Amino acid sequence: MSAPTEDPRQLDRADATAAVIASAEAFRNWGRWGQDDVLGTVNFIDDAKRAEAAALVRRGVSFSLSQPFDMNGPQLGWRRRTNPVHTMLDTGTDAEAGKQGFPHGIGGADDVVAMPLQCSTQWDGLGHIFDRGFAWNGRRAGDVVTSDGDLVTGIEHMAASLVGRGVLLDLGRFLRPGNAVGDGELPDGYAITTQEIEACIAAQGETSRLGRGDIVLVRTGRYTRARREGWNGYAGGPSAGLSFTTAGWLHRTEIAAIATDTWGFEVRPNEFDDAFQPLHQVVIPNMGLTIGEMWDLDALAHDSAASGTYEFLLAAPPIPITGAVGSPVNPIALR
Amino acid sequence: MSAPTEDPRQLDRADATAAVIASAEAFRNWGRWGQDDVLGTVNFIDDAKRAEAAALVRRGVSFSLSQPFDMNGPQLGWRRRTNPVHTMLDTGTDAEAGKQGFPHGIGGADDVVAMPLQCSTQWDGLGHIFDRGFAWNGRRAGDVVTSDGDLVTGIEHMAASLVGRGVLLDLGRFLRPGNAVGDGELPDGYAITTQEIEACIAAQGETSRLGRGDIVLVRTGRYTRARREGWNGYAGGPSAGLSFTTAGWLHRTEIAAIATDTWGFEVRPNEFDDAFQPLHQVVIPNMGLTIGEMWDLDALAHDSAASGTYEFLLAAPPIPITGAVGSPVNPIALR
Amino acid sequence: MSAPTEDPRQLDRADATAAVIASAEAFRNWGRWGQDDVLGTVNFIDDAKRAEAAALVRRGVSFSLSQPFDMNGPQLGWRRRTNPVHTMLDTGTDAEAGKQGFPHGIGGADDVVAMPLQCSTQWDGLGHIFDRGFAWNGRRAGDVVTSDGDLVTGIEHMAASLVGRGVLLDLGRFLRPGNAVGDGELPDGYAITTQEIEACIAAQGETSRLGRGDIVLVRTGRYTRARREGWNGYAGGPSAGLSFTTAGWLHRTEIAAIATDTWGFEVRPNEFDDAFQPLHQVVIPNMGLTIGEMWDLDALAHDSAASGTYEFLLAAPPIPITGAVGSPVNPIALR
Amino acid sequence: MSAPTEDPRQLDRADATAAVIASAEAFRNWGRWGQDDVLGTVNFIDDAKRAEAAALVRRGVSFSLSQPFDMNGPQLGWRRRTNPVHTMLDTGTDAEAGKQGFPHGIGGADDVVAMPLQCSTQWDGLGHIFDRGFAWNGRRAGDVVTSDGDLVTGIEHMAASLVGRGVLLDLGRFLRPGNAVGDGELPDGYAITTQEIEACIAAQGETSRLGRGDIVLVRTGRYTRARREGWNGYAGGPSAGLSFTTAGWLHRTEIAAIATDTWGFEVRPNEFDDAFQPLHQVVIPNMGLTIGEMWDLDALAHDSAASGTYEFLLAAPPIPITGAVGSPVNPIALR
Repeated sequence: MSAPTEDPRQLDRADATAAVIASAEAFRNWGRWGQDDVLGTVNFIDDAKRAEAAALVRRGVSFSLSQPFDMNGPQLGWRRRTNPVHTMLDTGTDAEAGKQGFPHGIGGADDVVAMPLQCSTQWDGLGHIFDRGFAWNGRRAGDVVTSDGDLVTGIEHMAASLVGRGVLLDLGRFLRPGNAVGDGELPDGYAITTQEIEACIAAQGETSRLGRGDIVLVRTGRYTRARREGWNGYAGGPSAGLSFTTAGWLHRTEIAAIATDTWGFEVRPNEFDDAFQPLHQVVIPNMGLTIGEMWDLDALAHDSAASGTYEFLLAAPPIPITGAVGSPVNPIALR
Repeated sequence: MSAPTEDPRQLDRADATAAVIASAEAFRNWGRWGQDDVLGTVNFIDDAKRAEAAALVRRGVSFSLSQPFDMNGPQLGWRRRTNPVHTMLDTGTDAEAGKQGFPHGIGGADDVVAMPLQCSTQWDGLGHIFDRGFAWNGRRAGDVVTSDGDLVTGIEHMAASLVGRGVLLDLGRFLRPGNAVGDGELPDGYAITTQEIEACIAAQGETSRLGRGDIVLVRTGRYTRARREGWNGYAGGPSAGLSFTTAGWLHRTEIAAIATDTWGFEVRPNEFDDAFQPLHQVVIPNMGLTIGEMWDLDALAHDSAASGTYEFLLAAPPIPITGAVGSPVNPIALR
Repeated sequence: MSAPTEDPRQLDRADATAAVIASAEAFRNWGRWGQDDVLGTVNFIDDAKRAEAAALVRRGVSFSLSQPFDMNGPQLGWRRRTNPVHTMLDTGTDAEAGKQGFPHGIGGADDVVAMPLQCSTQWDGLGHIFDRGFAWNGRRAGDVVTSDGDLVTGIEHMAASLVGRGVLLDLGRFLRPGNAVGDGELPDGYAITTQEIEACIAAQGETSRLGRGDIVLVRTGRYTRARREGWNGYAGGPSAGLSFTTAGWLHRTEIAAIATDTWGFEVRPNEFDDAFQPLHQVVIPNMGLTIGEMWDLDALAHDSAASGTYEFLLAAPPIPITGAVGSPVNPIALR
Repeated sequence: MSAPTEDPRQLDRADATAAVIASAEAFRNWGRWGQDDVLGTVNFIDDAKRAEAAALVRRGVSFSLSQPFDMNGPQLGWRRRTNPVHTMLDTGTDAEAGKQGFPHGIGGADDVVAMPLQCSTQWDGLGHIFDRGFAWNGRRAGDVVTSDGDLVTGIEHMAASLVGRGVLLDLGRFLRPGNAVGDGELPDGYAITTQEIEACIAAQGETSRLGRGDIVLVRTGRYTRARREGWNGYAGGPSAGLSFTTAGWLHRTEIAAIATDTWGFEVRPNEFDDAFQPLHQVVIPNMGLTIGEMWDLDALAHDSAASGTYEFLLAAPPIPITGAVGSPVNPIALR
């Protein structure tokens, strides 16, 4: 069997299933870290990598790569994904009006949130996607995620792991440098190819070289446009993103994780006539790759372009909600 | 007016109000960073401090300082604080049973959480506590936090800020080194004094010296015991913690933030006959000090004792829930 | 002072405040049932009224007047009002897959809902609306509803009360009988007047006569259209509804409660240049009138037209959520 | 095969499975109302029954049979069942403080609830319990209830159905009339037998005679005790309740539904060495019987004893939450 194509034009749009199967088999990492593994490619991050990453910090500048978490978010209710509902248990108006009953003039405010774990900036857990009934490392999907949550690969297992060397690949700026509206924005439906990624790395220079265990952040400019023009289908609608054909590159680079500024990481509409997120199906359950979505990469991109430096220490720990198949995250880039 | 005492024995247990007023006035930072300030002592963290912190990383070892977020947590419903309720929108059992209706064999799991923002490991926002109707920087409490949340000092303003040099002060181990049950645990009701803190710093050595902008983590051993014996009042019950009389030390050291392994940061029962968290009332609205609670400091404490090193890079970014007066956090210590 | 006009054409569109004040003073019931009252006009329902209502039941036909409660509802997030999020704690797929761990082959499904109390068919509680800082019966708004909920007039006080004689006034059919699209639908912005209500009662005949303690259901056809064409602004957008000038009629008829098939009960846009639900402001805090919204009156309307009978036993008990300012309800009409 | 025993002493405590299978087969109603049925025994309620029930109303007295819905409820978190968390979106303190931004002095309060559907007074839906992988009417459990809810027998199908003749059987008072502490309370673990039920009916007299389509309310006194002494294991702990051996009586009487004042309807601990709610397993998926739990029957019981009348019109419509396997309910008894 020949290796899956890296040229999107060679994909058979009519047969997503065959393409998924071929890529799944070509790029499967099941058993690579033992039968009990719960981390997948995050295993590629080791102490040396984290020490290397910390050594990248020179200026001490900190960037939050998180979008806001509030009712003004992009969610439209698809599969019950709403925006966060944040309500108060106690307020300052109550305190000032003397309604709280505490002694010596102390008053308090307290709050609650109800939200989908993938409503805004997030990591997908390894239990988030299945391939023909199988979850990461070859486990049966139903043995991993029940109504009780992810009993095996819950996001809590990555609580200390998602810290390492981050590299920004600003595909938006690289491929659309002269974009009149701003800082580089790819059009919806633009499928980023392996060739383009490699060219971007070459163009950005030495600080963009990738190695085993790095965490890659791909900026398409989709969030830049949402910020300017409104969400307009940001959640679930058309967007630039990675081509299905990048699976091989994602595999052979041995990166630990990848995140984008889009809702869905891969290009949308997907590159098959009848498909739903086929690249997810290859990389999460088969490759064990952790994916981040809806990140805000703009300030970091500006700083990268200005400084010519694309690498940084990335600290992006998930909230360890037991059994979660995803987590909100406020990723910090430090350089 | 003389400075507030730093000796707990000199507190007038019958008059919490007077003590609060005296300390509030003595240690108030209102206006120190301008009338529009929303960060308080977190302003003490600057780029140089962050660069200094990153330079502390040698081995690349990462510690998550977060407790789990699940139904097995300590909350008992006080003021409607429950443990997190995590439910699934889609499951692996559904996927494996072919109930999801997606093409080409892809399946998915997705989830939702409903939780108080201070149910487990958390930062208190500056809008969390008021002093006689006033919030941080002298604003009226009702002008800051309404049912719409914290309109001024919401936790989202600290999204990029809570990263810097962390220092563990292991008071549990320092004061109870020979504790038979383990790694140093202070008894409930033990009020940690300024003198003891300073002695602990001296004993721990050079890596524990504190300066402007540092983030201090105080381990009492309370969580160590909860892990061993069950929660038993961990949320809201008796505990070791900082004495009310440490307010001056918290002020003059110009630390950026402080966190503990307890529910309430300060000693409980509080050191007055009729009181509720009086040290909070001094330090949050008056000093603008950010407090973390319910952190898991045990693994870090073990490593600190073994290595003799108490400092580290701390990345503890809150989830930027707009208008929140607190946030779940998974703090990462990197050394 | 002359009585407020009952002719919408005489309203001064530029001065909502004056109109509200005049109507509030003219139709205020404060103190009518004592200083401790928590029921308002629901007091008009007595045992005799309920016995009379039960005697109306002849055929034993039961109508649910509730709209569905689910993610397909009309809510758009205004003031954090979302549609209900219903999630499962246990499922049949889990049970069938043997994941639940119960003995002797028993399996179970269980569920949770998170929803605004006014997301679908509902009663407004007496604490839902305030007039210039005052709640029902002249209490200060802040003394009634804090972050802890409605401490005085919570919906739980009406748990046994909202049962009595219901009368359907089918204004949609009466005013638009030849409507091509169906069963009588008033156009958006149509302000129903007292004169029209009285004419409708006369036309519908003896079973529509109203007396003290009756519960009036007004059908505009707005929900009929939403069901046919989609929500299209059902929540918060334009709609037929009661004119502001009907306040006097609502007062002098001594009805116990009123409900409509619309989001907002009163006509929208409101009849003033700058206004928000001014009739609510008159009737809830001043008159103590309980209002129902988003009811499904269509099947009942069909049956009423077919049978020529407009009265029925109405059982519409709220869910007694302690301190709630509203409640979901599944109203049952029995005739 | 002989009919299952109606004498609890003849149960083989060691073999719950055999007992469940025997009763399930003996009392199964699958197909009785066609293959598409979604109502089960609720089908027994017809118009004539509802008309008969309405005719029982003489005095017009209304009783709410609902327990409160709030944080003070009995739930302890078992399988993530919490007490209701009710929070405010807007408050009177905010309104009074002028924080809401509405015109002409109108102010508002609004609220949200997050709660398990079976946290307090409730109906079990037909999808709530499965027998060896099968749901009501012989459907596969996984074909009925997925993460999307009950796709077939959701509680919304009963929106207009649970209205009819109710009969209170006050077993607590009948069996423990001389109880010193009050109004008749059975001890925990007391298994009510068919013989006792029939004797209670005989003792209560003519108004307690049961026929096809009636809704039976069984009072044990468990909630009376909880109200007096605190919950003490009300949710999930020991309690009086129906013996497993009453399944035959539940079947042959052709009642439409049954509800109790206990958490679990059947006696607890269950009457087998290793068992969990075996009577549920027989009556819900096999018989199609709708069960209500956690009802407050005390005021109705007092009135029944005083009046010597045990029948009434019962209006107990569930909130039609689409796909729910249970529903909060505020049942109204009218007599």
